Amino acid sequence: MNKGLSEFMMEAIRLSVSNVEEGAGGPFGCVVVKEGKIIARGVNQVTTSNDPTAHAEIVAIRNACAALNTFQLDGCDIYASCEPCPMCLGAIYWARPDKLFYANSKEDAAAIQFDDQFIYEEIAKPVEERKLFTQQILRDAALEAFKKWTESTIKKEY
Amino acid sequence: MNKGLSEFMMEAIRLSVSNVEEGAGGPFGCVVVKEGKIIARGVNQVTTSNDPTAHAEIVAIRNACAALNTFQLDGCDIYASCEPCPMCLGAIYWARPDKLFYANSKEDAAAIQFDDQFIYEEIAKPVEERKLFTQQILRDAALEAFKKWTESTIKKEY
Repeated sequence: MNKGLSEFMMEAIRLSVSNVEEGAGGPFGCVVVKEGKIIARGVNQVTTSNDPTAHAEIVAIRNACAALNTFQLDGCDIYASCEPCPMCLGAIYWARPDKLFYANSKEDAAAIQFDDQFIYEEIAKPVEERKLFTQQILRDAALEAFKKWTESTIKKEY
Repeated sequence: MNKGLSEFMMEAIRLSVSNVEEGAGGPFGCVVVKEGKIIARGVNQVTTSNDPTAHAEIVAIRNACAALNTFQLDGCDIYASCEPCPMCLGAIYWARPDKLFYANSKEDAAAIQFDDQFIYEEIAKPVEERKLFTQQILRDAALEAFKKWTESTIKKEY
C-alpha cells in the first residue's frame, strides 16, 4: 500500500478514535482527499447535533463541497474509517468521487450494534416486505413536477 | 385514502412543483408529520446549496429533528413526493419514523434521468463488482475505535 493511502486512512481512524474519547459521537471518521491533500474532515455528530444524517461521511462530503464550492467531488478520494452505511454510500454516489477506501467492515459495525447491515437488507427488499411501513399514494398528481422538470428551461441538472 | 394522508402528500407535491418553477432545485418535496400536523418541510437544494446530500427528505428530516430537538423521529410519518433514493431511505431508517408514504416511483425518477435506480443496483452488488472503485485497507488499525466505543462509559447510543 502506498504511503499516501495509509496516511489518509490513519487520519480518518484518528478522527474516529478521538470522537469516542471525547464522547462526541459514534466511532467513525472520514477525510476527503484531492490532489494529495486532505480538503475536508468529518466525524459522526448524530447525538451532539441532533441530526441522524450527521454521519462522518456525510459531514465530510458537505465540508468538502463547501470548501470546493461545488456539489460534485470530481477528482476526489474518500477515506472512511468504516464501510459506509447505505445512506452514506448513496451520498458518495451522488457526490461522484473517484475512489472510496474504507477500513472497518459493515459486519464489524453490526458486531457493535450499529444498524448498517439491517438497513442494507431492508433496502434490498421489495417495498411491501420491509419492516418500515411504506405506501405509494397520489402518483398521478406527483408526476406533474417531473413533467415540469423535463420542460423547464431554467433547471440546473445534477 | 383518508383526508390527512392526501393533504400531507399534496403539500409535498406542491413543494416539488414550486421548487422546479422557481429553478431552486430538483422536482422533489417532503414533509414530516407528527400528531396530525406538519412539523417540517424540505425541498431539493443540491445545486443551490452546493450540497449533494441536500435531497428533500434529508432536508426535511434535519428540519424535523431540529424542531423536535432530537435525533429520532418517533411517532412521525414522512411524506415524500418521490420514492426515496438509497441515501434518503437510509436516512429514514436511521431517523426511525413510524411510516413512509411516497408518490412518484424510483422508475419515474429514472425516466427523467435521476440516478436512483443505478444507485440501488450498485449498493446491492458486492463491493468488488461496483462501478465505484472501492478498497478496504487498515481494518486492524480501525478496530481500535470500535473497541473503545464498546468500552466507553460516556457514549450516547443512537
